[in-house]
Amino acid sequence: DTQQTAPTGTPTLAVIPGDGIGPEVTAEALKVLEVASPVKFESTRYDLGAERYLATGEVLPDSVLAEIREHDAILLGAVGGKPNDPNLPPGILERGLLLKLRFELDHYVNLRPSRLFPGTASPLAEPVLQKGEIDFVVVREGTEGPYTGNGGALRVGTPAEIATEVSVNTAYGVERVIRDAFARAERRPRKKVTLVHKTNVLVNAGSLWWRLFEQVAAEHPDVTTDYIHIDAAMIFMVTDPARFDVVVTDNLFGDILTDLAAAITGGIGLAASGNVNPDRTAPSMFEPVHGSAPDIAGQQKADPTAAILSGALLLDHLGHAEAAAAIETAVLADLRERAPGATRRTSEVGDAIAARL
Amino acid sequence: DTQQTAPTGTPTLAVIPGDGIGPEVTAEALKVLEVASPVKFESTRYDLGAERYLATGEVLPDSVLAEIREHDAILLGAVGGKPNDPNLPPGILERGLLLKLRFELDHYVNLRPSRLFPGTASPLAEPVLQKGEIDFVVVREGTEGPYTGNGGALRVGTPAEIATEVSVNTAYGVERVIRDAFARAERRPRKKVTLVHKTNVLVNAGSLWWRLFEQVAAEHPDVTTDYIHIDAAMIFMVTDPARFDVVVTDNLFGDILTDLAAAITGGIGLAASGNVNPDRTAPSMFEPVHGSAPDIAGQQKADPTAAILSGALLLDHLGHAEAAAAIETAVLADLRERAPGATRRTSEVGDAIAARL
Ligand SMILES: CC(C)[C@H](C(=O)O)[C@@H](O)C(=O)O
Ligand SMILES: CC(C)[C@H](C(=O)O)[C@@H](O)C(=O)O
Repeated sequence: DTQQTAPTGTPTLAVIPGDGIGPEVTAEALKVLEVASPVKFESTRYDLGAERYLATGEVLPDSVLAEIREHDAILLGAVGGKPNDPNLPPGILERGLLLKLRFELDHYVNLRPSRLFPGTASPLAEPVLQKGEIDFVVVREGTEGPYTGNGGALRVGTPAEIATEVSVNTAYGVERVIRDAFARAERRPRKKVTLVHKTNVLVNAGSLWWRLFEQVAAEHPDVTTDYIHIDAAMIFMVTDPARFDVVVTDNLFGDILTDLAAAITGGIGLAASGNVNPDRTAPSMFEPVHGSAPDIAGQQKADPTAAILSGALLLDHLGHAEAAAAIETAVLADLRERAPGATRRTSEVGDAIAARL
Repeated sequence: DTQQTAPTGTPTLAVIPGDGIGPEVTAEALKVLEVASPVKFESTRYDLGAERYLATGEVLPDSVLAEIREHDAILLGAVGGKPNDPNLPPGILERGLLLKLRFELDHYVNLRPSRLFPGTASPLAEPVLQKGEIDFVVVREGTEGPYTGNGGALRVGTPAEIATEVSVNTAYGVERVIRDAFARAERRPRKKVTLVHKTNVLVNAGSLWWRLFEQVAAEHPDVTTDYIHIDAAMIFMVTDPARFDVVVTDNLFGDILTDLAAAITGGIGLAASGNVNPDRTAPSMFEPVHGSAPDIAGQQKADPTAAILSGALLLDHLGHAEAAAAIETAVLADLRERAPGATRRTSEVGDAIAARL
């Protein structure tokens, strides 16, 4: 990431609350952002998602994308309709909206910090947790791999159907994300980067990732490196997660790895993410890792913490590192005092965190 | 799987001990097999793996494959040389030997049972374990997906390099493995099949898997079904693994999922697998999920339990269900009495289990 400096003038925010619990958690993220930020944002709300698609057939009109592109940053809640809605073909929103934004705005660093905050329950047993603090960040590639929409199908619906998915990996795309991972490691105390891939089976992509990793590593002699296969990474994630510092991996492995990382650090309700364009040629987008959870939508049951922490990543990206740290501290304090089993309304969690700032 | 009946005459076994700890764990599996089996096997040993490749350049000569093909079953230890051996290109053994056997012998059901045996330590915390017994089986597709070796690279070593990996999915290949999963579910008390995929991103392959899953499900009204994305499956695996009964998934997702499944059920030292050709047009192959662990090779430190349990799967496949169950019972008893932290030599574990039969 290039060194952050705050933009001059009033920063502009494109807000996409989305579907399900998206609007509820986004409201709390904005509430906290407003209190924490040293500058006032000018926010514009964009209604995109399942509801708009079902009503109008529109996913992401070009004109809306063009408008969004003019903002300093994007805050997104969650996107996705009811499961198995026959009017909502699988992938239409994911590929047409979420991934489209990531690809069009060149969010090549999908940044997913994983920390087990003190006092937060983990599904892992004590002996695993005793091995050390869980505090790592996954730098997931965001614009290539099996997410490019390459591939197709032949003779659909017949016994002779064939369907392919193509993982596309370029030196251009792989090198830049690996460089970002090393730059992040340089700013962290442990200075370690782990490459996760499946080089023994996916030999073409694996070889590209491996060679560029070695090449960039050679330029960072003070950074420790290692490599593990995605399957072995599963094992380490639940038996020794403290071993990870910065993890760099491809789009699909990163998707899988970060949900597991979220699960072991207190759940998807706490996992924040940034879809970052480190070159700042377009706005970066910040969103909780969780989905739209239509089953609990509108009931003020969702935990807005992940959205609030995504707001902190947004502030950090815009050069307000102190304000971002203040949100984290407030969240940490709130988490520490959460009574096990107690339930607060979504807005109560936002209020409580905002009140600490 | 077609109903097992024991082959008449002396059954023949192709034994591939392989590299690293492979020979040690295979020896114990054979020791236990000999005691448990109601019939005597005629075993032929095939020296394949890193050592042979490094000495001769041969991975799997056609003539050897042809010989292996004539056996009733294959027992494999583990294959793979020292990490980063410059004389061992990544993937050469995996693709040229292990995957070649799976593909050539049409092992389309890669069967991976996951049970947390009583008394075995899990990295998961008590509240997760209390949710219910962990006892599921992953039916991993074994002959398609991103494992086909499709794909390639252009302008290798230049900044314009592009590398692709193609996931190939056919109705033929997907339907048969889904049918196998439902047949297995019919024989289990809970009768439930979960499809794991990533239909919202990999829409071509996802749609094929989804449609065939629905179609086969319709023929099994007594089997409960559900679908979860691979990323969400990560979360369930560590927060509520008891929810799984039979899981059916593609080759790569299955690889990832089963290492996690192994980790939460006591580790890779206990995870057995079968590469099954249910149509019996070629021998099926049984192997521990773990690798060759060259760092501890030859030291009698490896746990042979996974290899021994793979031997039980082999017996079951050959129609000796009772003998297979007896091995499981013996392993269970042994596990229950393993003192935490105590270490036994590889051969001592094999002796102890054999002695219970
Ligand atoms: C919704 C889906 C397209 C998305 C992804 O796969 O990237 C999500 O799982 C995530 O991790 O942000
Ligand atoms: C060694 C490797 C090729 C293999 C795989 O990816 O299938 C292994 O991880 C497994 O799960 O059996």
